[in-house]
Amino acid sequence: MPHTLNQTHDPAARSWLESANVPSVDFPIQNLPFSVFRRKHSDEAFRGAVAIGDQLVDISAWASYAGLRETAREAAKACSQPVLNTFFSMGPSSWSALRHALFEALHEHASSHDRAAIKACLVPLSEVEYGLPAQIGDYTDFYTSIHHATNISKLLGLSGVSPNFKSIPIAYHGRVSSIGPSGQRFRRPAGQIMLPGAETPTFSPSLKLDYELELGIYIGQGNAAGEPIELDRADSHVFGLCLLNDWSARDIQAWEMQPLGPFLAKNFATTVSPWIVTLEALAPFRLASPRPDSDGRPLAYLDSNENSATGAIDIQLEVWMETARHRAGNLPASQLSRTSFKYQYWTIAQMIAHHAIGGCNLRPGDLLGSGTISGPVKSEAGALMELASNGSAPVTLSTGEKRSYVEDGDAIILRGYCQKPGFARIGFGESRGEVLPSKV
Amino acid sequence: MPHTLNQTHDPAARSWLESANVPSVDFPIQNLPFSVFRRKHSDEAFRGAVAIGDQLVDISAWASYAGLRETAREAAKACSQPVLNTFFSMGPSSWSALRHALFEALHEHASSHDRAAIKACLVPLSEVEYGLPAQIGDYTDFYTSIHHATNISKLLGLSGVSPNFKSIPIAYHGRVSSIGPSGQRFRRPAGQIMLPGAETPTFSPSLKLDYELELGIYIGQGNAAGEPIELDRADSHVFGLCLLNDWSARDIQAWEMQPLGPFLAKNFATTVSPWIVTLEALAPFRLASPRPDSDGRPLAYLDSNENSATGAIDIQLEVWMETARHRAGNLPASQLSRTSFKYQYWTIAQMIAHHAIGGCNLRPGDLLGSGTISGPVKSEAGALMELASNGSAPVTLSTGEKRSYVEDGDAIILRGYCQKPGFARIGFGESRGEVLPSKV
Repeated sequence: MPHTLNQTHDPAARSWLESANVPSVDFPIQNLPFSVFRRKHSDEAFRGAVAIGDQLVDISAWASYAGLRETAREAAKACSQPVLNTFFSMGPSSWSALRHALFEALHEHASSHDRAAIKACLVPLSEVEYGLPAQIGDYTDFYTSIHHATNISKLLGLSGVSPNFKSIPIAYHGRVSSIGPSGQRFRRPAGQIMLPGAETPTFSPSLKLDYELELGIYIGQGNAAGEPIELDRADSHVFGLCLLNDWSARDIQAWEMQPLGPFLAKNFATTVSPWIVTLEALAPFRLASPRPDSDGRPLAYLDSNENSATGAIDIQLEVWMETARHRAGNLPASQLSRTSFKYQYWTIAQMIAHHAIGGCNLRPGDLLGSGTISGPVKSEAGALMELASNGSAPVTLSTGEKRSYVEDGDAIILRGYCQKPGFARIGFGESRGEVLPSKV
Repeated sequence: MPHTLNQTHDPAARSWLESANVPSVDFPIQNLPFSVFRRKHSDEAFRGAVAIGDQLVDISAWASYAGLRETAREAAKACSQPVLNTFFSMGPSSWSALRHALFEALHEHASSHDRAAIKACLVPLSEVEYGLPAQIGDYTDFYTSIHHATNISKLLGLSGVSPNFKSIPIAYHGRVSSIGPSGQRFRRPAGQIMLPGAETPTFSPSLKLDYELELGIYIGQGNAAGEPIELDRADSHVFGLCLLNDWSARDIQAWEMQPLGPFLAKNFATTVSPWIVTLEALAPFRLASPRPDSDGRPLAYLDSNENSATGAIDIQLEVWMETARHRAGNLPASQLSRTSFKYQYWTIAQMIAHHAIGGCNLRPGDLLGSGTISGPVKSEAGALMELASNGSAPVTLSTGEKRSYVEDGDAIILRGYCQKPGFARIGFGESRGEVLPSKV
């Protein structure tokens, strides 16, 4: 699927809504990400929205505007539902039609009719709360950062990354029920832990609670069971991306994961950012895949014929920690690390082609996690286990506090954005999750 | 949760529907399992049903009967939906109320009004097709047969079962989208395989396609995130059980599963029987858990205070294979093995208590697989890999054909029932799945 640039990528485009034109804003007119929302403290139904500046457009209100053309109107109706699965299932031409109609109506040269209609549908972001934008049928978590895999292998004293890493976009099935939108607060998990030197496990709250910086990938159109997805068409099955924190209890994981993989270590909470940034908005930031030729060609179903810039995406990512002391002192959160999605060994298209190659059917609204995103140097690590070397080199925060792992009351905030000269900034907003004390 | 016997367990109870009184029938009046159905080749909506003899009761038709008391009527209304999640969420008192009302109306001493009303709602089983009885939010597959774990360890040349096996009811998250009801037909999966002696993987249809005999456990009422389920109340969260075939591609699994567990090896198809047998119907067949005292007490959250017969369930299980040659010759299928669920090392209650102990929330309609059910001797193995010793000792069928693994055109049929003197037979019907050739 070619990622040609179109009018929505024009960096000179401006909105009549001034808050969308601030250079540092996450949601300029070139972005237009989707979510579902309702007014805070209300019992309204959740419904679809697009973010613009410091406002959102209530699509359910806009869907009845007589100025909408048919494809955009049908898409807007689907977007009025409490979850966006139906909208996702309509495919790239419907997604684009709605996004382009919004672009035109929000543009500084919009007709007065268009402008008035959409103005009546604006709601300030400060007044809303978010739901999960899709009913997620299945959640799959990948493991596609070679830097993360290398770091973890060293910390566990292994001889190197798993021998299949360079052949397979490794993945496992995750838990859907505990995925929550930004703002998620959850109790520290408890479970079986094998303490150093012990011969039998202890039941305890996790002593090694960690986060994992990931991107979430929402499937748009799915595939039928037994019908694989070709690599070169795989991107057309992606609706868009969000930020994802795959909370992990390292000590519970170490004892439970043989032989069948992580279970309780990762099923107590997963936090996603509410806004889904479309692949169309991200098109200017595509890069070639960083997988080196020296690693050999992958098997044909993972091997792209073209050597085009449809592989990686340069999404800059940051992890921040906010402790009780930050909040008490009204201090800004401490940055833990920053990296980019461009380092990921396998591309999104390769993850999808692999997922479907054996006959597994993907459905609209399925969520894929990229796996922890770590860059080549230590300050670019996507998990605290890596940054603090499994507790042997605790991280010092701007408050003077030290952290080997995440403590009660700590919040982890993920942020992401694309930015480069000649293009508007495309932001993701944030994913925020906070740890409450264990009950046991 | 005590498993006291009640009127529905009376072996002397008979129905006015004669087909329910045949001694070998799976669905006597003492069973009354639930499913969803519609007439074959129709575009009717799926809706809830209870099986009786060679018929089913269309609950959506019966729900409007004026003779129903309130709790049963509300339950029947919930049962009229295309999936039974709402009914599951109502809890044991509602499930019992509906089941007991059906028992009374189907009993030979039923009033003529009751009898006439329900007679109008009967549909022959031969005229229907089944859907999945619940919208499954998450599917978790356990690994709780010590005999299966021991067999697999030996075949893989390992020194013994995983060291955590006797401490943890091991589990991993499975794929929901590819679960299908009995009758499922699917293409042989293809994927990456590391052939013996090779240094790089090959892309190929699986050469080691296997089945796994399991029971499926449907969650009735769930739990809130962060609120564990106590062991002694865990059974009250179970709506009922079905048969489950966890199709597995052993060669794809061997190469992909390090470090995070099986993925494509198990996400192409999972086949469940349509009828869900309630724990209430199974109460007469409860046994003490077989976990030996010599293995030590499990951690407190897995350790029952009472030493009552609420642990295991003696469900007799059979695996049958039907090949193209059976069908061409109109021959009965060949039995591959038979065993019992009573051998399982961990109980259903322990699986559920473990699942929720770290804070994970279960939801109505979630499905748990028991893991492969193998008994202590080889003829009781629940997978062909065990029966045929990973291809070194192929199984001979009644047709004279040999099988190391499942071949194209083969169907695997699972059957299950409880039977003992002094009680009616409680049957599960069957789960049937058939392998089609790979497209690649």
